[in-house]
Amino acid sequence: MAANIHPTALVSPSAQLGDDCTIGAYTIIHDHVSLGSNSTVEAFCELGYPQKDMGASPLVIGDHAHIRSYSLFYQGSIFGDHLHTGHRVTVREKTSAGRYFSVGTLGDIQGHCQIGDYTRFHSNVHIGQKSSIGNFVWIFPYTVLTNDPHPPSYALVGVHVDDYAIIATMTTILPGVHIGSEALVGAMSLVNKDVPARTIVFGVPAKERGTVTQVMDAEGNAVYPWFPNNKDRYPAETEQLWEAYLIARQAQLNPDEGTL
Amino acid sequence: MAANIHPTALVSPSAQLGDDCTIGAYTIIHDHVSLGSNSTVEAFCELGYPQKDMGASPLVIGDHAHIRSYSLFYQGSIFGDHLHTGHRVTVREKTSAGRYFSVGTLGDIQGHCQIGDYTRFHSNVHIGQKSSIGNFVWIFPYTVLTNDPHPPSYALVGVHVDDYAIIATMTTILPGVHIGSEALVGAMSLVNKDVPARTIVFGVPAKERGTVTQVMDAEGNAVYPWFPNNKDRYPAETEQLWEAYLIARQAQLNPDEGTL
Amino acid sequence: MAANIHPTALVSPSAQLGDDCTIGAYTIIHDHVSLGSNSTVEAFCELGYPQKDMGASPLVIGDHAHIRSYSLFYQGSIFGDHLHTGHRVTVREKTSAGRYFSVGTLGDIQGHCQIGDYTRFHSNVHIGQKSSIGNFVWIFPYTVLTNDPHPPSYALVGVHVDDYAIIATMTTILPGVHIGSEALVGAMSLVNKDVPARTIVFGVPAKERGTVTQVMDAEGNAVYPWFPNNKDRYPAETEQLWEAYLIARQAQLNPDEGTL
Repeated sequence: MAANIHPTALVSPSAQLGDDCTIGAYTIIHDHVSLGSNSTVEAFCELGYPQKDMGASPLVIGDHAHIRSYSLFYQGSIFGDHLHTGHRVTVREKTSAGRYFSVGTLGDIQGHCQIGDYTRFHSNVHIGQKSSIGNFVWIFPYTVLTNDPHPPSYALVGVHVDDYAIIATMTTILPGVHIGSEALVGAMSLVNKDVPARTIVFGVPAKERGTVTQVMDAEGNAVYPWFPNNKDRYPAETEQLWEAYLIARQAQLNPDEGTL
Repeated sequence: MAANIHPTALVSPSAQLGDDCTIGAYTIIHDHVSLGSNSTVEAFCELGYPQKDMGASPLVIGDHAHIRSYSLFYQGSIFGDHLHTGHRVTVREKTSAGRYFSVGTLGDIQGHCQIGDYTRFHSNVHIGQKSSIGNFVWIFPYTVLTNDPHPPSYALVGVHVDDYAIIATMTTILPGVHIGSEALVGAMSLVNKDVPARTIVFGVPAKERGTVTQVMDAEGNAVYPWFPNNKDRYPAETEQLWEAYLIARQAQLNPDEGTL
Repeated sequence: MAANIHPTALVSPSAQLGDDCTIGAYTIIHDHVSLGSNSTVEAFCELGYPQKDMGASPLVIGDHAHIRSYSLFYQGSIFGDHLHTGHRVTVREKTSAGRYFSVGTLGDIQGHCQIGDYTRFHSNVHIGQKSSIGNFVWIFPYTVLTNDPHPPSYALVGVHVDDYAIIATMTTILPGVHIGSEALVGAMSLVNKDVPARTIVFGVPAKERGTVTQVMDAEGNAVYPWFPNNKDRYPAETEQLWEAYLIARQAQLNPDEGTL
């Protein structure tokens, strides 16, 4: 079926819309946009915003996207299937994100960054340029990934966040910091040095406070690793990815045991 | 008089608009919206945004509302008379707020929360689900009320804020924390435990620093309780509410004196 | 050439648009707006938003402005040439800013404030009323300039920021604080007292940590003063302004040497 386009939407004739797409009222779709099938773009959105120096570089969004109202995507970025956004999201050029990426209301992705599969940002997250974020990462509201070690300068150095890491609310990560896999950064932290895998840090500046395996919930059950307790948030195939991750992690922990 | 609807506004025929309402340009009013009389909804707003699983649950807004441009309200919430908003406000489903509720520009209310009468949020406040906020509360910019003790989890525990409490700028309240009545949380605090009534706390983490009655302004006058110094911000009936609050407070302070 | 106005834009007949202006789709331009020549106002903007008590006070924007989509400017403010904004900027009444002022996405300028020439705000900066900000200032994301010493009160006291100062990410400046010229406030700081010129402060609360001249980059080169390393961000005339600033600064450092 052809796209279902609201009569007030302004859609470039050169935009490619997949089957069964819905385009909301007062939404603008510029040139150089490719939107996958079964996708919804709500009202007041702007896709393929033209950025100088980006030529004809396209905005490519996969199938089953759901882009909520007032969201803005520049040309020159690429997203896997099942992109979900909140409202008022701003995503600049040269952003690359994988499958099932989710970014909450007021998210501000400055572009020139890489984001893995199944990663989720809650509301009002700011991702500086040159950030590199793995798979299954969670970032909570009012968190900023910075990139300028000596502001203002041109020497931008991005933050790296590894798979399954969690960054809680109102946290600032300084330029070049590496957050290890499954690490937990507590709320309102200033992270100025690398965080080892599975480590808990918090504070201003953040200090190591233990390992995630020590955290118990009110019933005395282990909270981390968090994935087994949250499987139903994800499609079925993610269970295999988790098993594969665990095998790779085990190999890393026991390097003497040789290749798997 | 019938509603004054801008010709570019898209208003559902099933929406109920009170007398003398004004609906701005390019604003969308979906089904299941009831807007009280003498209300203004400015340009680029979206009211009654449909949320899955909410069926025909309505968005009910009282009389004399003033909703500023680019604001978004989901279906399934209810607001008393004299709702005032800044611009770009996002309010999700299952929010209940009383009379004279005011929320500033960029406010992000995640829904599933209760807010009392005469409460005011300044710009860019984030209210997590399951929050419970009393009457005459003030919350200042870039403050976040969180709800997840072990992110990411399903065990959301809301923050409670009692009447006349004040939370200053750039503060994070951790899940389940109870902020007592008339308490003052200083700017840039991380509040990880309950705050007694009339107590000042600040810091990362916040610590008790005295009682609000100790605070003097530059002229040596007592600043708190703040209500007597700010009466003209509120309608006349609030003075009686303050008197009633004082009587109830006194009874609480002197519990041996028996029922009032 | 006359203005290039998108057919869906709603432009007041009394608005004054300079030659070669472009007005984007679904943008609203109210009465009392004067926009300089060669300016672009993108889609979904609102200029000259009427504010009660402002009468016919105009919004005046100079030549070569570039206002990105979803931005909102109230009536009763004035901007020099080469105003540049990100998206979703909100600027209230009685804001005065000089030439080449730049404010990033989600910026929230509360009005009643003064901003100099060549000053730049990154994304999501909140400027409280009564702020006074000099020339060539840099303010980074999620920074708030507050103004209420005893919230909630009417005794607003603004923050002052001197020329060439830098305020890094996620910082709160308390009311009445004076940030000296070329000072550097580190990320995630709470600044509760004045910062001398060329001083580095950070922390909660911020403490003096040295002078900017001590900062070296990875190659051992001096980072500050930052202007000589960033000349190409600015038009040519700024070099003379920097030289003049240096002479004035020298005179201040050596007051005994008499008038220059």
